Amino acid sequence: MDSFEFMSPTEFILQKDADKLCGEKIKRISDVCLFVHYGDGFTYKTGLHARITESLEMAGVEYYELPGVEPNPKVKLVRKGIEICKEKKVGCILAVGGGSVIDTAKAIGIGAGYDGDVWDFYSKKAAPTESIPVGTVMTLPATGSEGSNGSVLKNDQTGESADVMADCIRPVFTLMNPELTMTIPKRQTIFGIVDMFSHVMERYFSSSVEVNLTDYMCEGVMKSIIVNARTLMTDLTDYNARAELMWTSIVAHNGLLATGRNQDWATHTMGAQLSAQYNAVHGSTLSVLFPCWAEYVYKENLPRFVQFANRVFDVDLDFYNQEKTAKEGIRRLREFFEWMGAPTCLSQIGVENDEKFKMMAETACRFGDIGGIKALNARDVEEIYKMAQ
Amino acid sequence: MDSFEFMSPTEFILQKDADKLCGEKIKRISDVCLFVHYGDGFTYKTGLHARITESLEMAGVEYYELPGVEPNPKVKLVRKGIEICKEKKVGCILAVGGGSVIDTAKAIGIGAGYDGDVWDFYSKKAAPTESIPVGTVMTLPATGSEGSNGSVLKNDQTGESADVMADCIRPVFTLMNPELTMTIPKRQTIFGIVDMFSHVMERYFSSSVEVNLTDYMCEGVMKSIIVNARTLMTDLTDYNARAELMWTSIVAHNGLLATGRNQDWATHTMGAQLSAQYNAVHGSTLSVLFPCWAEYVYKENLPRFVQFANRVFDVDLDFYNQEKTAKEGIRRLREFFEWMGAPTCLSQIGVENDEKFKMMAETACRFGDIGGIKALNARDVEEIYKMAQ
Repeated sequence: MDSFEFMSPTEFILQKDADKLCGEKIKRISDVCLFVHYGDGFTYKTGLHARITESLEMAGVEYYELPGVEPNPKVKLVRKGIEICKEKKVGCILAVGGGSVIDTAKAIGIGAGYDGDVWDFYSKKAAPTESIPVGTVMTLPATGSEGSNGSVLKNDQTGESADVMADCIRPVFTLMNPELTMTIPKRQTIFGIVDMFSHVMERYFSSSVEVNLTDYMCEGVMKSIIVNARTLMTDLTDYNARAELMWTSIVAHNGLLATGRNQDWATHTMGAQLSAQYNAVHGSTLSVLFPCWAEYVYKENLPRFVQFANRVFDVDLDFYNQEKTAKEGIRRLREFFEWMGAPTCLSQIGVENDEKFKMMAETACRFGDIGGIKALNARDVEEIYKMAQ
Repeated sequence: MDSFEFMSPTEFILQKDADKLCGEKIKRISDVCLFVHYGDGFTYKTGLHARITESLEMAGVEYYELPGVEPNPKVKLVRKGIEICKEKKVGCILAVGGGSVIDTAKAIGIGAGYDGDVWDFYSKKAAPTESIPVGTVMTLPATGSEGSNGSVLKNDQTGESADVMADCIRPVFTLMNPELTMTIPKRQTIFGIVDMFSHVMERYFSSSVEVNLTDYMCEGVMKSIIVNARTLMTDLTDYNARAELMWTSIVAHNGLLATGRNQDWATHTMGAQLSAQYNAVHGSTLSVLFPCWAEYVYKENLPRFVQFANRVFDVDLDFYNQEKTAKEGIRRLREFFEWMGAPTCLSQIGVENDEKFKMMAETACRFGDIGGIKALNARDVEEIYKMAQ
C-alpha cells in the first residue's frame, strides 16, 4: 500500500426531486448565482429548467444564465461565464447537466478570481488554489465530474484538450434525482456505463502491491456496474438501476478507489486522440481500446489480470495456465461491452484506415511514456491502435 | 436503493511521519490550539508527544494541553477542555490518540461555542450546528471516529453513555502514520478488527433491497479485513496490514457503506449495556454478541445471511437448503473471531450469571425496539444475552 492524500468534501444528496433543493443549497452560499446548462431540449422540454429557476426564485437567489454548453466543452464559453461572474459579483455557480456542464462550471469557478486567462490553468502555466463554489444537479452520470477534482476543456483556437486537477474545484454539493436519468437514450446510457467501468479499471490496473482494501472495493464496484447494466439493458426505465449507477459514477471517480495505489490511465490518454481526430464519443474510445490495451499489456502483470478475470468476471482459475485465465477475463470484458452494444473496434467508430495512427501515438506520448502497468511509448500506442482496427 | 444524504469532508493523509504534519495543518486553521491526548506511556515514551509539540512549535502554533482521556471518555474532562477553549480563544482542537480522544475533542468542539452544558447535546436537549474544527492524529484504529460524524461520551454522575451524530463534528483532517500502530498489543489489535468488522456488518445487515453497489463494497471491505487480520495474527508488525486496517477503520464507519440503505445497530446497543454493567471492552461485546444476534434473527432475512455466507466467508451454496448455508456463514463468523482470540461467550468477559439480563434488556430497549433486520424488544434482547452465556 502506498502513501496517499484524499479528500471528497462534496455533500451528496440522492432522492426523487433532489434538483428542487438547489435554491436553498445555493442560498446558504451566496445570493447571486450563475446557472450553467446545455440549453437543449432536455433542459427545457422536460420542465427541468422551470424547476431549477423556480427553486432559485423561491430561495431569493438572483441568477444569471449561461446556456449552450456542448460535449467536449470549449474555453470560449468559459470566458463568457467568467465575464458574467466578474460583472455580477456571482458567489456560487450551479451546473445543471452532465460532465461537460460541470467541467465548464469548474473552469469558470477558478477563472473568475484569476487575473490572467483561464487557459493558463489548463496549460499548467498556473495552478488554481481557490474557486467560486460550484454546486451540481446531475442529469447524465458518466464522467464522475460531479464528485471529482478534475475538469477537461477544449481550446477552440488550437483544438487542444487539457485538464485541471485540484481539490479546490470539487463541487460543494451534488444533487441526484434518478428520475432525471430515466429518459437517457440507450446509446448514451451504454457509454456512461463504459465510462464508469473504465474509471475503475484505470485505478484497478495498478502495479502497487498489497492493496487488498481498494482491490476488493474496485472489484465490488465493477460487479455492481455489470449487475445494473444487465438490468438497464432489459429495461432502461428501471429506477433502482438508474439510481445505483448515478451514485456509482461518483464512487468510481472521486478518488477513493485510488487511495494507496498508483494508476494507469493509458487508455484514457489514447482515447483522447481518437476524440480529437475523429470526434469520437469518449465512452466509445474506451470500449474499443480497453480490451486491446489489456491484450497488449497483460503479461506485464499477469497475476493482476488473473485476479480481474476471476473476481470480476467469475472466470474459473486454471491453476496450470494462468495466461489462459487472464485472456478469458479480457475476452469477457470485450464480450460485456459488445453485449451492451458498445463498439469494440475502430471501424465501428468511423476510423477507416491507419493513416493517423503514428501521429496520434506521438501526440499521446508527447509528455513521455503513458500508463502505470506498463509504460507505453509511441510505438506501443501505435501498435494498440492497429490491434483495435 | 433508498434516498440518502452523505458527506465526508475530512482531509485524509496516510504516510510514514504523517503526524509531523499536524503543525502546518493546524496553522492554516488557527494560531491557537488545544492538544488533547491520553497522557499515557505510549504518548510520552514513544516520542509521539515530543514530535507533536515540536511540529506545533515549528509552525508557530500556541497550544494548550488536555491529557488524561480514558477509555469510555467522560464528560467531566470535556468540560475542562471547554473552559480552556473559552479562556484561551482556541481556534482548533488536535486529538492525538484513538476513538476516546477524538470523541472527547469533538465534544469540546461543539461545547466551546455553546452557552449551556455540553451534555445537552448528548441528552438531545440541543442539536449542534457548528464546532471548533477538530484535527486528528490516529494511533488506535478501531472506532472510526477519525472519519465519522459521531461522538460517544459517558456522564460521570449518572453513568449513562450517549452519543451525538452531526456532520459538523466530522474532523477537518486526519493524519495516519501506520508506524504508530505497529506496537499496538495483540489484544487491542483484535478488538479493533472486531470493531471495524462490526461497523460494516451493522450496515450490511439491512432490509433495504436492490443495493448492489453498497452490498459489494461492504463485502469487499469485510474480505479485506479478514485478509489483513490473518496477516497481523501471524506478524503484528506487518506495516502493510497495519496501514490497510488504519484506512479500513475509516471506510468502515464514515457512512459511505450505508448510503442508500437502512442499518441495524441492535448489536451495538446490546453491547453498550455490557460495557455499562460489566465495564466490558467494546470490541469484546461485539465478538460475543454478533454471532448470537445473527443466530437469533437470520430467519427474518434468510437471503441476506446466505449472501453473507457465500460472498464474505466463501461458503458453497446449498441450493436445496438455504438455511444450512446461512448457518454455516454464522459459524464461520464466530470461528473467525475465535481464531483471532476474541471472546465469543459472556463467561469469557466476566459475566458469570444472568441476574442483570432482564434489566439490561429493558434499558437497551428504553427508547423502543432496536435493530433494522428484525425489531427486537426487551424479551428478544434478554434471549440473545442468554444465548451468549
